[in-house]
Amino acid sequence: MAGTDLAQVRAMVFDVFGTVVDWRGSILAEVTALGRAKGIAADWATFVDDWRRGYRPAMQRVRSGDLPWTDLDGLHRIILDEFLRKHGIASLTEAEIRHLNLVWHRLNPWPDAVAGLTRLKRRFVIGTLSNGHVALLVNMAKHGGLPWDVVLSAELVRHYKPDPEVYRSAASFLGLEPSAVMMVAAHTSDLEAARRQGLRAAYVSRPLEHGPAAPHETVAPDAFDVVVGDFGALAAAMGA
Amino acid sequence: MAGTDLAQVRAMVFDVFGTVVDWRGSILAEVTALGRAKGIAADWATFVDDWRRGYRPAMQRVRSGDLPWTDLDGLHRIILDEFLRKHGIASLTEAEIRHLNLVWHRLNPWPDAVAGLTRLKRRFVIGTLSNGHVALLVNMAKHGGLPWDVVLSAELVRHYKPDPEVYRSAASFLGLEPSAVMMVAAHTSDLEAARRQGLRAAYVSRPLEHGPAAPHETVAPDAFDVVVGDFGALAAAMGA
Repeated sequence: MAGTDLAQVRAMVFDVFGTVVDWRGSILAEVTALGRAKGIAADWATFVDDWRRGYRPAMQRVRSGDLPWTDLDGLHRIILDEFLRKHGIASLTEAEIRHLNLVWHRLNPWPDAVAGLTRLKRRFVIGTLSNGHVALLVNMAKHGGLPWDVVLSAELVRHYKPDPEVYRSAASFLGLEPSAVMMVAAHTSDLEAARRQGLRAAYVSRPLEHGPAAPHETVAPDAFDVVVGDFGALAAAMGA
Repeated sequence: MAGTDLAQVRAMVFDVFGTVVDWRGSILAEVTALGRAKGIAADWATFVDDWRRGYRPAMQRVRSGDLPWTDLDGLHRIILDEFLRKHGIASLTEAEIRHLNLVWHRLNPWPDAVAGLTRLKRRFVIGTLSNGHVALLVNMAKHGGLPWDVVLSAELVRHYKPDPEVYRSAASFLGLEPSAVMMVAAHTSDLEAARRQGLRAAYVSRPLEHGPAAPHETVAPDAFDVVVGDFGALAAAMGA
């Protein structure tokens, strides 16, 4: 471990989208195939990026109280409908649109994720701590073979990250002090919010999250308790 | 399966105390050893039975609003303190009492439980649906190797079974119709309450739950969707 002060960590909770699973690659593959099958021409890479980008303002409407609690299926559907309208795509049936919207339940893990989690699970309680709702996270785990001990979600406290309630709930649900819980994410803002609630923080670099051409943030090796390049290195850093 | 009407079941949620784990045998072994180590003479079998029996009225105080939400650690501690006082047992330190109270996190599975759950997990989402809180259920799963996909608990809705909110929450958290969720329990009252909320019901007989001498309820083979003697038979009945 990076320091003996990490010896008290008992549980590790993971951001999921981008940290554990490759949302962009998974969705791009599925929508490209769908477009080909249905004869729909569109810039699918931009579509996927826009779909993800729309999630932040949609979630913000919930965080601000403008929208009542709405799960990610609901938020994703709002953004998807807008895209289909804007691009005049009318050849998808309601069942096809509903299936497409649930592609977020079918995201594939990064190649190192399952092996790293399996190692960490031997030594720690491992769980999600995601803005995805429980059903989405459970379906995704079945799809990708993610060996979670527990599925923790924004849905359980009806607050989205980075609201402090979400991070505090992880320690509380696990019956642990915040300092015994480590947040793992590929996003510094998530880790900073976790740290403000007393959690430990591990940064895992995912340079391909936004595609090979996108700029990628650089994080100093001492910016968080652990800074690594994949889940294998994370397991090694945590002595698992 | 008992009928094609069970083909729509996607998730199976399990009562835990008595159904998945042998609370009486596990606790009796631990307190007997503790009593021997500390030189405390007591009728430990009666102690264990009283501890479990005290749980229902304690929980009822929460269900009725007499007590605010209190998790099982809190309820178990109230009952334990009363027992120690009543029997004049003063030789346990606070740390020892606290450790003893957490014996409910260290219960051992029935011999057929892990193998049966492992089979069922290949075909269904499997989860707890217990009055135990999340931390207790996660610790117990780590202790006994229970391969849950999801840990659902009374704590998440702050209602204890048999309040209807608990059963409804299982379907809601999993994004399923109630009829796609099967409740598994060794207690008919739990199954009847689940069924009233539209869940499917599987009864698993655990004749040793209250010890070899205790009377055991007999359930007709057609009283629930599935009536079996262990988790191996449950997996077979569900085609897993």
